[in-house]
Amino acid sequence: MPVPRTHPRYASLKTRERLVQAHRQGIAALEGLIAHGRGEAWDYLLGEETSAPALVAEKAAAAFLVTAERPVISVNGNVAALAADHVARLAAVVPARVEVNLFHRTEARVRQLVRVLRKAGATDVLGPRPNARIPGLESKRALCHKEGIYRADVVLVPLEDGDRAEALARMAKLVISVDLNPLSRTSQAASVPVVDELTRALPNIGRFVRDLKADPDEATRVVREYDKARNLAALYAFIRWRLANLVRVTKGPERRGRAKS
Amino acid sequence: MPVPRTHPRYASLKTRERLVQAHRQGIAALEGLIAHGRGEAWDYLLGEETSAPALVAEKAAAAFLVTAERPVISVNGNVAALAADHVARLAAVVPARVEVNLFHRTEARVRQLVRVLRKAGATDVLGPRPNARIPGLESKRALCHKEGIYRADVVLVPLEDGDRAEALARMAKLVISVDLNPLSRTSQAASVPVVDELTRALPNIGRFVRDLKADPDEATRVVREYDKARNLAALYAFIRWRLANLVRVTKGPERRGRAKS
Repeated sequence: MPVPRTHPRYASLKTRERLVQAHRQGIAALEGLIAHGRGEAWDYLLGEETSAPALVAEKAAAAFLVTAERPVISVNGNVAALAADHVARLAAVVPARVEVNLFHRTEARVRQLVRVLRKAGATDVLGPRPNARIPGLESKRALCHKEGIYRADVVLVPLEDGDRAEALARMAKLVISVDLNPLSRTSQAASVPVVDELTRALPNIGRFVRDLKADPDEATRVVREYDKARNLAALYAFIRWRLANLVRVTKGPERRGRAKS
Repeated sequence: MPVPRTHPRYASLKTRERLVQAHRQGIAALEGLIAHGRGEAWDYLLGEETSAPALVAEKAAAAFLVTAERPVISVNGNVAALAADHVARLAAVVPARVEVNLFHRTEARVRQLVRVLRKAGATDVLGPRPNARIPGLESKRALCHKEGIYRADVVLVPLEDGDRAEALARMAKLVISVDLNPLSRTSQAASVPVVDELTRALPNIGRFVRDLKADPDEATRVVREYDKARNLAALYAFIRWRLANLVRVTKGPERRGRAKS
């Protein structure tokens, strides 16, 4: 049964369908579906729009990508399912390498993701035949590429797992996360936590990349002045304001429990 | 790789594993996994404990179940996966009928759920061969049993879809929801929204059922005095307090974005 376009939650339901479809195609993991649900709840709280603090973080993310020497965009199943085209475009404009990194890694799924990314227009995709390890991670979760994530100075990790974000931060990389939960270990570990929905965040970062490439002084200024703690504080304040607002909106006519007569 | 018992999020991760497993067995739907993720995010906000307002709602739920003439517990894939034993116990103590109701209904999955519930000890389980329809719902989503949900005066609908909760409320049933999102259409449509995690909520309701069966005057008093709007207001206040608190806890030593040197 198709979701009607008039449904108040059309965009959210279409995204959900897309992810379910991606799971059936072997792109998204079952755990990825649960993680997506967590994101949906946070996005609902955020109003399903880019907040002002998120936009500030997105500009900072762009500034760090533009001034990086070896920027890499890490891609997992949910990212490939929801935003392969956005990743390909951002990688081209920075330019940055793309590396497939799966928490629930199988080589078949890695190859499947590489295909999806190439089809979306990404030209420089690492993933199969990894030749390095991220220190402090277990087994297949540590696998990566020397010429990709391992030697990157700036890594964009959308929808990343907390353990891995922390491991990358310990490698003294500048980690840019995209995660709707501002309290997650990923957001806490990242140098630049972008608290926004993936398909809003990546094009926003891409636009800032274009602007900042034309204005290197501004890029340097943003890199110097970005303040993670202040940015997160603004975001928390925004969420608390939203929550107060949501409660007012949803409190309609009161419906009491009926007593049995 | 098993989750170590010492992991700070052990219970949450085990539940997640259980649901993934249940999907592989054909019990939980893919959409159910995403819905579970939304619940996880809310439960994190709630502190993964039964709040005082939730306990008040659980006592009210018990009072309405105890004083009902034809109480029914509705069970979907996630409920069967996570709490078949709790459902069986609560159904026995009320006593209430149990009816399998699937949003993504297939007859094979209905039979599978009936098996799971019977194995957990439920004796009176409806589901296959439905003979009535809930007005206002489309196609297979409307199917139900005359001697179950259709004629019930009080329906407990854990983890219910918004459309269906609203349709049941329009039938002038007293709807008790168990849903971690206090702002969801299900929580808004329910007469008694229980905003708590399923495997905490059902045993709590069961304990109150036992108490109130021994004290019918108290049951009558609770039914008379329960105030949904006041209960939700208390819950919203609790979440806002939690959010303020969480922010303080997670704000550790400040980590700034590194400037390139």
